[in-house]
Amino acid sequence: MKKIIPFLRTFGLVAAAVGLSVLAGCAGMPASSVDTPLAIAKQGSFFVGGRELQSNTLSGLPAARPMPPAAGGSAPPDPNIGTVSVEQMYVQYQIPAAALPTSLVLIHGCCLTGASWESTPDGRMGWAEYFARRRYPTYVVDQVARGRSAMNATPIAAVKTGKLAVDQLPAGYMVGREFAWSIFRFGDEYPKVHPDLQFPLQAQGELWKQMVPDYAFSFPAPNPTVPALGLLAQRIGGPVVLVSHSQSGIYPFLTYAQSPRNIAGIVSIEPTSCPASPGDAERFAAVPVLLLWGDHTESSAFWAPRIRQCREFADAVNRAGGNASFLVTAERGMKGNSHMLMQDKNNIAVADLVLQWIGRTVR
Amino acid sequence: MKKIIPFLRTFGLVAAAVGLSVLAGCAGMPASSVDTPLAIAKQGSFFVGGRELQSNTLSGLPAARPMPPAAGGSAPPDPNIGTVSVEQMYVQYQIPAAALPTSLVLIHGCCLTGASWESTPDGRMGWAEYFARRRYPTYVVDQVARGRSAMNATPIAAVKTGKLAVDQLPAGYMVGREFAWSIFRFGDEYPKVHPDLQFPLQAQGELWKQMVPDYAFSFPAPNPTVPALGLLAQRIGGPVVLVSHSQSGIYPFLTYAQSPRNIAGIVSIEPTSCPASPGDAERFAAVPVLLLWGDHTESSAFWAPRIRQCREFADAVNRAGGNASFLVTAERGMKGNSHMLMQDKNNIAVADLVLQWIGRTVR
Repeated sequence: MKKIIPFLRTFGLVAAAVGLSVLAGCAGMPASSVDTPLAIAKQGSFFVGGRELQSNTLSGLPAARPMPPAAGGSAPPDPNIGTVSVEQMYVQYQIPAAALPTSLVLIHGCCLTGASWESTPDGRMGWAEYFARRRYPTYVVDQVARGRSAMNATPIAAVKTGKLAVDQLPAGYMVGREFAWSIFRFGDEYPKVHPDLQFPLQAQGELWKQMVPDYAFSFPAPNPTVPALGLLAQRIGGPVVLVSHSQSGIYPFLTYAQSPRNIAGIVSIEPTSCPASPGDAERFAAVPVLLLWGDHTESSAFWAPRIRQCREFADAVNRAGGNASFLVTAERGMKGNSHMLMQDKNNIAVADLVLQWIGRTVR
Repeated sequence: MKKIIPFLRTFGLVAAAVGLSVLAGCAGMPASSVDTPLAIAKQGSFFVGGRELQSNTLSGLPAARPMPPAAGGSAPPDPNIGTVSVEQMYVQYQIPAAALPTSLVLIHGCCLTGASWESTPDGRMGWAEYFARRRYPTYVVDQVARGRSAMNATPIAAVKTGKLAVDQLPAGYMVGREFAWSIFRFGDEYPKVHPDLQFPLQAQGELWKQMVPDYAFSFPAPNPTVPALGLLAQRIGGPVVLVSHSQSGIYPFLTYAQSPRNIAGIVSIEPTSCPASPGDAERFAAVPVLLLWGDHTESSAFWAPRIRQCREFADAVNRAGGNASFLVTAERGMKGNSHMLMQDKNNIAVADLVLQWIGRTVR
């Protein structure tokens, strides 16, 4: 049963109620408008973390035909033997013109990639671009072993070639839409739909295409993404807010506990778990925390206990002298938000709640 | 031995010599400069292609603890059973302000992802951004089953749970740096280095981190990326130049043969193979083709026969009344270009050769 627990923690914000305030410093900036061209000072991608792995089973293919030696040289090496890099984390970033000093790092959830934060399934602007338009340097990661962050496929090749037992295969997971449905809170059960649902359900096929096999369950704790986020905050060099979602909801807390340098705030959107309270709450008294939730969590067998646990954590942080905000969009006049708040029809209004909290709280 | 051939075709441009000309229409545009902010009219991502797959082995995990039913509802579905999407292709795009009418689609090579076209390993500007700065709408894909384009992991789960035989495991391939070395032409053999090498070798670790397991060998021909590129050209809607590299070098030809709509040009950078000549050359008489190569191919046992085959193809296209250009950077005063021309120290000068050809040739 031990393996089942992370599985059930797969999907998943917590905070004390916050008041609304206006976005500071953005009005009238052409680079910030959503209707004018976005002015990018610098963009690109890089990797953090990772380790070298030497293997003699780089593929499950038969040994390749030896290539002829180069002129005057020796035969080229066996393609199945050599050194590869694993456990590095891919980071794609945009630094807008006239950037603010605080950077945002966006960390996707289970079975997804950084694409979560790009265009919404129905083609509207995602949070990655919107935050850049609001002048925040924005970094989108692919968790280790997913998307553009390589997974280690050598155990699969080793099983295929008889060098390793079948039970050593990595336990990847592809989430089916029928199972995801109630966890994403499109409705209480598949295929029912909440009448006020904010998710653009007509474009659901595009969300399902964003999903990739998730090998997070094959790693011992902590997932290599956790130290990689610490390395990223150090590389960015200024104040960083880690923005996580669902399965990665707990990661900013784990990263901060390991390596708090430059981490100036934690935004955890519908985390599948929060740090234990009161045990761990004191450790987060010095970093502002926002836990953000959508609607219909009470009728969700999956979410109801999680939101309760996270509310207890936020209360414990505040009792320890910290600053934890617990925000439920449904309590702020926004009805029908799904688990995929960053893709919901009101995603920009939800993003504004996050930016208001950052503008008011993060120093 | 049949399986070995695609393996040896793994890495890999062809053309008749072209004269140099100047870039038209870019001077003085702030959006095109490499030193001023880049003005982006629209950016985002989406998927093309893909199919629904129903499976009862979505994971190799033990059956999850059944969740309690929702209030008044039935129990949620088994997480191992359901519908997922596979074989879709991820596309990330940037449309600059004052965009030109022709779009560029960038297709990476073996064991890599779209990250090939982003920042170079030593952190300089990659071709994706440079082309956007030169006002081309630019689309970067992740080939099917790699990067943000999901691979189908259900056979792995089925083997792990005893439902499928071990030999049904997909044959993924991770390329080791020792094997890649001579194919990337850092030197004739590992770890020798061409004295005039243009690749930023001090940052090689970042290139190795770009590599991901490649499952292209598990697909029957044509790879699902081929029809997906056709769908992408149709979706873009105007003239498109497909720019491929290495293992994907042949894909634009296969796509064009299937579905030529909107494909206004083919740029194939160091393809591992070209269409058969004279057999297939006539099919490409109506589309301009640029085959581009770097330096030191003559001393490469891997590349020498490939460049010969591609030169024969280009000659056959031209004999059939077509317009195939064969460009070797080393014959244009640029010495030491590696197989990774888009990441070499002179990558912008090489990009300009491509843009000059497009400006002169593509209508």
